[in-house]
Amino acid sequence: MKYGEESIAKAELELWPNLFIDKNYEIKIDFPEFTCLCPRSGYPDFATIKITYIPDEKIVELKSFKLFLNSFRQRYISHEESTNIIYNELYEKLTPRYLEVIGDFNPRGNVKTVIRISSEDNPKK
Amino acid sequence: MKYGEESIAKAELELWPNLFIDKNYEIKIDFPEFTCLCPRSGYPDFATIKITYIPDEKIVELKSFKLFLNSFRQRYISHEESTNIIYNELYEKLTPRYLEVIGDFNPRGNVKTVIRISSEDNPKK
Amino acid sequence: MKYGEESIAKAELELWPNLFIDKNYEIKIDFPEFTCLCPRSGYPDFATIKITYIPDEKIVELKSFKLFLNSFRQRYISHEESTNIIYNELYEKLTPRYLEVIGDFNPRGNVKTVIRISSEDNPKK
Amino acid sequence: MKYGEESIAKAELELWPNLFIDKNYEIKIDFPEFTCLCPRSGYPDFATIKITYIPDEKIVELKSFKLFLNSFRQRYISHEESTNIIYNELYEKLTPRYLEVIGDFNPRGNVKTVIRISSEDNPKK
Amino acid sequence: MKYGEESIAKAELELWPNLFIDKNYEIKIDFPEFTCLCPRSGYPDFATIKITYIPDEKIVELKSFKLFLNSFRQRYISHEESTNIIYNELYEKLTPRYLEVIGDFNPRGNVKTVIRISSEDNPKK
Amino acid sequence: MKYGEESIAKAELELWPNLFIDKNYEIKIDFPEFTCLCPRSGYPDFATIKITYIPDEKIVELKSFKLFLNSFRQRYISHEESTNIIYNELYEKLTPRYLEVIGDFNPRGNVKTVIRISSEDNPKK
Amino acid sequence: MKYGEESIAKAELELWPNLFIDKNYEIKIDFPEFTCLCPRSGYPDFATIKITYIPDEKIVELKSFKLFLNSFRQRYISHEESTNIIYNELYEKLTPRYLEVIGDFNPRGNVKTVIRISSEDNPKK
Amino acid sequence: MKYGEESIAKAELELWPNLFIDKNYEIKIDFPEFTCLCPRSGYPDFATIKITYIPDEKIVELKSFKLFLNSFRQRYISHEESTNIIYNELYEKLTPRYLEVIGDFNPRGNVKTVIRISSEDNPKK
Amino acid sequence: MKYGEESIAKAELELWPNLFIDKNYEIKIDFPEFTCLCPRSGYPDFATIKITYIPDEKIVELKSFKLFLNSFRQRYISHEESTNIIYNELYEKLTPRYLEVIGDFNPRGNVKTVIRISSEDNPKK
Amino acid sequence: MKYGEESIAKAELELWPNLFIDKNYEIKIDFPEFTCLCPRSGYPDFATIKITYIPDEKIVELKSFKLFLNSFRQRYISHEESTNIIYNELYEKLTPRYLEVIGDFNPRGNVKTVIRISSEDNPKK
Repeated sequence: MKYGEESIAKAELELWPNLFIDKNYEIKIDFPEFTCLCPRSGYPDFATIKITYIPDEKIVELKSFKLFLNSFRQRYISHEESTNIIYNELYEKLTPRYLEVIGDFNPRGNVKTVIRISSEDNPKK
Repeated sequence: MKYGEESIAKAELELWPNLFIDKNYEIKIDFPEFTCLCPRSGYPDFATIKITYIPDEKIVELKSFKLFLNSFRQRYISHEESTNIIYNELYEKLTPRYLEVIGDFNPRGNVKTVIRISSEDNPKK
Repeated sequence: MKYGEESIAKAELELWPNLFIDKNYEIKIDFPEFTCLCPRSGYPDFATIKITYIPDEKIVELKSFKLFLNSFRQRYISHEESTNIIYNELYEKLTPRYLEVIGDFNPRGNVKTVIRISSEDNPKK
Repeated sequence: MKYGEESIAKAELELWPNLFIDKNYEIKIDFPEFTCLCPRSGYPDFATIKITYIPDEKIVELKSFKLFLNSFRQRYISHEESTNIIYNELYEKLTPRYLEVIGDFNPRGNVKTVIRISSEDNPKK
Repeated sequence: MKYGEESIAKAELELWPNLFIDKNYEIKIDFPEFTCLCPRSGYPDFATIKITYIPDEKIVELKSFKLFLNSFRQRYISHEESTNIIYNELYEKLTPRYLEVIGDFNPRGNVKTVIRISSEDNPKK
Repeated sequence: MKYGEESIAKAELELWPNLFIDKNYEIKIDFPEFTCLCPRSGYPDFATIKITYIPDEKIVELKSFKLFLNSFRQRYISHEESTNIIYNELYEKLTPRYLEVIGDFNPRGNVKTVIRISSEDNPKK
Repeated sequence: MKYGEESIAKAELELWPNLFIDKNYEIKIDFPEFTCLCPRSGYPDFATIKITYIPDEKIVELKSFKLFLNSFRQRYISHEESTNIIYNELYEKLTPRYLEVIGDFNPRGNVKTVIRISSEDNPKK
Repeated sequence: MKYGEESIAKAELELWPNLFIDKNYEIKIDFPEFTCLCPRSGYPDFATIKITYIPDEKIVELKSFKLFLNSFRQRYISHEESTNIIYNELYEKLTPRYLEVIGDFNPRGNVKTVIRISSEDNPKK
Repeated sequence: MKYGEESIAKAELELWPNLFIDKNYEIKIDFPEFTCLCPRSGYPDFATIKITYIPDEKIVELKSFKLFLNSFRQRYISHEESTNIIYNELYEKLTPRYLEVIGDFNPRGNVKTVIRISSEDNPKK
Repeated sequence: MKYGEESIAKAELELWPNLFIDKNYEIKIDFPEFTCLCPRSGYPDFATIKITYIPDEKIVELKSFKLFLNSFRQRYISHEESTNIIYNELYEKLTPRYLEVIGDFNPRGNVKTVIRISSEDNPKK
């Protein structure tokens, strides 16, 4: 196992204090290299994951976030599940003032799917 | 009759339970290969069908949805009718929290037509 | 006079019953081949005409709409007038729940003009 | 059977005399609405067919060419075959000074295929 | 008849002496507002006309060229004919060192056509 | 002084009666060839001027508007000033129901500037 | 040290009186050549900085603003910090009626980040 | 192991007879979902693989080609190696009249790499 | 007269020695802000000037080249003349190994013109 | 000094053996984050550096190439010089079968410059 794979195997979201906590500001992150495996067939799936959040006390460190997304590479997981899991993980760890997660998947069977979850539509969550 | 044609002939929307029912999230599906026949002339028509919905208890399985759209290939049907039929079928089967269906048709006679139906404009439906 | 010219000469908007009258849905029509003559100089003008409406009891048949737009070819008429006439004709014939007409004209004298009329800005009309 | 379907069923390339036979000039034709059926599965395939030719004594009438391409709708035929058949049909009927046929197919299984045949690469035909 | 129409009715290519006759240089002209009438149906056709030439002793004055192209508005003429006529007219009047004329027509019946004539393919003219 | 320069020297906005005064409709005008001189250095500046208005009793004649914008060619004037002057001139002459003026300037010193004034943000004018 | 570097070393935002203080109007400024150094590794980072503000009594002189942004070239500073510092500096100096600052950074580790701060989300600031 | 993974594990290029062997024609195939692992770090790499060939006696079956490319997912392999291996495999199995393979890789460390191998540059191969 | 105008009034191409005279290399320069006056009407014309050259003993200093192009602002000159004058000036001053000058002018009367002069087409010059 | 800066300070092109020396294949590398300082003013310059080469016995390791390009950040150097130095360095170290280097610089004073050096134009080099 190479060092990059070890980093991915141990991947966990690293949190940093938000140095500008008195301000509402938006952080957008795009990761165009998400891949996982279809839970039925085992064939690979590909997506761009797009995050927008307004941090409260914590922000997520970028490299640990990338490793976390890399860790889905050999997981069997549907489009809806992976997008929801990323949302939940970020929401619980960051308790942000606002969070949106979009999973923009490559076409399968000539059909393109995009999943979008926003804290605005889930006020009580 | 080949196996693909048989699948299309028997096409019916397959429903799956929504595993994230406590959350409002959006699913967008684009299908750029819709084709049917003009009810007057019998000439082929072509469209991209675009769906956006917020699921309630059920989500639609993608392959069954594609086969359902494939099944219009030899039907005589107008732009307005096909878009409305797709909307109604999805609305009745899914009873989603939100639904929008767009039929974005190729130009005919140098005129381009787009039909759009949204549950937001039809609150009682 | 050829048969196409005769069709254009007799052009009148043909109305069809709206088969989905219990629903609010949007119909968008783009016609990129509108041409008429400048009322001052007689030089040709060119535009794309874009219509969006929510039908009430009637929808407009597409071919008759194209012929109606073709019938402006040799008329002397300004940008504002042609867009208003198309709006008025559609509004009176269709009494739609919503109507927008856009006349997107090619530049003249290096100046590009777009005229837009919407029933939302004209509530009493 | 509607009149359009009858026209398609009887489709045959109609040839017109080339009125400018003393000149070499190029005619390019794009048809973005080609569809046929996969010979293995029966699932629909979609393509844009692109023709370029330098006519000799004959040119092909456009509407008859469109009907000819429409006639593939329910045929079981591979990408390579359909492109070669269109090339052969045009080559034999037109005996043009130059001919290129491109079949630019929609992705299948996330793989996009383009077939291209040119008389330049086939000097003896 | 307005003054613009009169100018178009009398349109004739105006020639100017080439002030840089000792040099080979290229002049490209694009006119996106060409329109004429289909010789069969009388329905309007639309095209962008693109000219490239290397002048010899004469260049064509731009406004007279535009009026010449405007003069096709009510003529019954096919795609091939109009492109060849424009080519011949320019070739005879200008006897240029090089000439290419492209007629890039709007789709008709979902089929797009482009006609291209070049003096390079017609060495003897 | 040539006739075009004389027209520009005498440029004044020409007003026409709004023939559709009972209706609210939008007129958008884009002029991509605005140029003036920097008040500090005298170097040329370039911009696209974009106007949107809802006319009340008057509309602005297009050619006079172009000449008015042409008349800035040799004026020393900043980005903010030219945009405000155009806004004020149009507002006073037209007393429109709505007016927006955008000055979209070419980069200077690798910095791009866009000035935007809207009557919506200036309710009392 | 060259004269440009000296100008950058002494860079300070220069303020000018707003000559149109009675009006609300928007100034947008884009600077695509922002660069600084990563506080952890010292590797260079790159961004486009986008500013939108509605001035109150003062506007910022463009060249001094560019020099101010140039002065980050050799600073060790994170994405969040640089965007917040630019926002704070502009907010304090200009006390504008509205201010938005966007730091649109080049991807690092295949992840793209955009930071956005708006006075609309920070009413008390 | 799911059925899709089994298909990939057993992936081997399947060859079909070229039914149009008397003709030179080009087949282009694009596969935008190639992924493998960096031989040094183990981190994932991503590419679009583009193939163009003129078949001789055999053509490659599309699905088997996709599975072959899928089989690189967990291999440690450099950009140059993977592109060369794909080229060699296709060249040996197909002995085509012409072959080009392009590996168009996503940026790594802000540097984008494209590898291109063509039989035209390797005449003796 | 401001200092920028004085610089433009005195504009002359400044030449620098080519430090890499033993090598053939290409320099491309694009200037999108060329403007002059129509010799007939006096109305302004606009163009992008594009230069490509392979230097011999001298290269042209960029700022002096910009000032030279700025100096056409109030000159009465046709499209063909300005492009030829720029070509001649550069050719005589630089005696380059290769030179191409393109004048890509904004449409006038809905007609777009591009003038192109290359030393390749003028071997003896 | 941070570790990244140290890596850049010591940057030297690292060479690897070409594992496919019996084949001619092309490697293209794009680096959009090149920056240096103007030798006259000290102001920063920005460019995308594009390399294409056909390796002989050696290929250049990507990270060492990036660090080499990073090392120009605080150097005073003109567009022509930096492009020539990169070309020379690569040519001497790699002695490739083919080499092209393009320096595509951001506009300065509204003028865009691109420098291109190819071994094809320098056969003896």
